[in-house]
Amino acid sequence: MARRRRIYEGKAKVMFEGPEPGTLVQYFKDDATAFNNQKKGVINGKGVLNNRISEFIMLRLAEIGIPTHFIRALNMREQLVREVEIIPIEVVVRNVAAGSLSKRLGIAEGTALPRSIIEYYYKNDELGDPMVSEEHITAFGWATTQDLDDMVGLTVRVNDYLSGLFLGVGLKLIDFKLEFGRLFDENGDMRIVLADEISPDNCRLWDSKTGDKLDKDRFRQDLGNVREAYQEVARRLGVLPAEVESEDTEGDPKNPRVVN
Amino acid sequence: MARRRRIYEGKAKVMFEGPEPGTLVQYFKDDATAFNNQKKGVINGKGVLNNRISEFIMLRLAEIGIPTHFIRALNMREQLVREVEIIPIEVVVRNVAAGSLSKRLGIAEGTALPRSIIEYYYKNDELGDPMVSEEHITAFGWATTQDLDDMVGLTVRVNDYLSGLFLGVGLKLIDFKLEFGRLFDENGDMRIVLADEISPDNCRLWDSKTGDKLDKDRFRQDLGNVREAYQEVARRLGVLPAEVESEDTEGDPKNPRVVN
Ligand SMILES: Nc1ncnc2c1ncn2[C@@H]1O[C@H](COP(=O)(O)OP(=O)(O)O)[C@@H](O)[C@H]1O
Ligand SMILES: Nc1ncnc2c1ncn2[C@@H]1O[C@H](COP(=O)(O)OP(=O)(O)O)[C@@H](O)[C@H]1O
Ligand SMILES: [Mg+2]
Ligand SMILES: [Mg+2]
Repeated sequence: MARRRRIYEGKAKVMFEGPEPGTLVQYFKDDATAFNNQKKGVINGKGVLNNRISEFIMLRLAEIGIPTHFIRALNMREQLVREVEIIPIEVVVRNVAAGSLSKRLGIAEGTALPRSIIEYYYKNDELGDPMVSEEHITAFGWATTQDLDDMVGLTVRVNDYLSGLFLGVGLKLIDFKLEFGRLFDENGDMRIVLADEISPDNCRLWDSKTGDKLDKDRFRQDLGNVREAYQEVARRLGVLPAEVESEDTEGDPKNPRVVN
Repeated sequence: MARRRRIYEGKAKVMFEGPEPGTLVQYFKDDATAFNNQKKGVINGKGVLNNRISEFIMLRLAEIGIPTHFIRALNMREQLVREVEIIPIEVVVRNVAAGSLSKRLGIAEGTALPRSIIEYYYKNDELGDPMVSEEHITAFGWATTQDLDDMVGLTVRVNDYLSGLFLGVGLKLIDFKLEFGRLFDENGDMRIVLADEISPDNCRLWDSKTGDKLDKDRFRQDLGNVREAYQEVARRLGVLPAEVESEDTEGDPKNPRVVN
């Protein structure tokens, strides 16, 4: 099989040209980064787990009517997605204080927020993804007010659904990050769809009973058992792959194989 | 005259109990701070100049229907104001990129913004006045949506008016910071009024022709002639006090004298 053109290599994933026009292959790496790339590491098997977790969540969200970029699973580390024009805004929803919110506003981690709070960050590694508000986003044309309204509407639904889904498997959804993109149909009409991934890389998930962290904070804070935490999330969602223990050979980032 | 009770000593001003209930005496110090108190200094005569400049601006704003806390001048360094319940949000308006916006978003200082941008900062020295959005402000109850609507409405008018006023005296209003407070009338009805001060301490003012900075950035960036810059702003506004050259003895922060 011919080599695929690599469109973009990010911190956690590689995007390849897909088999059909307007599609991409999203390859999940084991690489982990934190604190704006200052901390780097590898979590063995993370790519396989996030691929499965994200697939599962994107499918469930599609079922409740959230448009997503997800088309279908390809193999252990790859999924086929619709190519979108990524809106350079990370939408963060917080249900409980943690991470940068706790630090910036002096609110103890674990404090339930009076209500869910939506934050925006400008997706720009060089600037360290600075927090921005609707004012900056619309003034600089990163998204329109209409885009933001659509994104917020979808985000609120995703938060409701995922809060319920995770609670059902004994996990508290503390906060998470979403990315959206613009998808143009044959007539040139645009709609906003959920893109990127939803996984323990970009959700904070705490065990409902013990409060244990089952997400990337284990890597950020050197808590150990990082891979096991991701596995536990996959297991609870019923998508833990049997092969995850063995070294995965299927998706080679240099020559990804598409299984149809 | 009896000693007045000191209500609060801030970085640039001291607030004393006023002569009538519900009033405060706002005493303007020469102290200057920057970078969240890391840089400290004294700008001789600044208090006198800011007292006059702020008085002048508050009076002009009142004339166009902006409610303010200002009642009347008392002496060189003091003004009588209505005591308000300060809303702990600094409202910043930016017309041209400068300062933290340039730094955070990587936009060269002096770049005209596509449109004026309003930002909010949580007034909290310990946390370094973190930037926040309407979401944080309303979730944590620092202000209601209605308060914010009122504040933004007033802020937009202040920006229009001051942009014109300063342009008229050869100064470009790059950005500025406002504080608002809640004022309750006899019936317990609340309204939002402009409080604190408006001066080169919290406005960026560039000479329209030369681009020279005539504001606190001269102190922040060690550009020299700080006092002269404040004097020049006062002079252009027609409020430069004759006595500013001589050491001011009138308002003593430990025993402010009220001239009625
Ligand atoms: N459907 C899509 N179409 C185009 N780009 C996408 C799509 N989904 C995600 N992306 C982008 O691809 C990249 C995914 O790789 P990742 O490792 O997360 O990158 P980054 O280091 O920029 O976060 C991200 O920049 C993301 O915005
Ligand atoms: N009319 C008012 N009533 C009550 N407080 C006020 C009023 N106007 C200003 N203030 C507050 O008084 C203080 C003024 O002193 P300042 O040196 O600016 O303090 P800070 O160091 O907190 O900025 C500020 O905290 C400001 O919010
Ligand atoms: Mg990413
Ligand atoms: Mg102040």
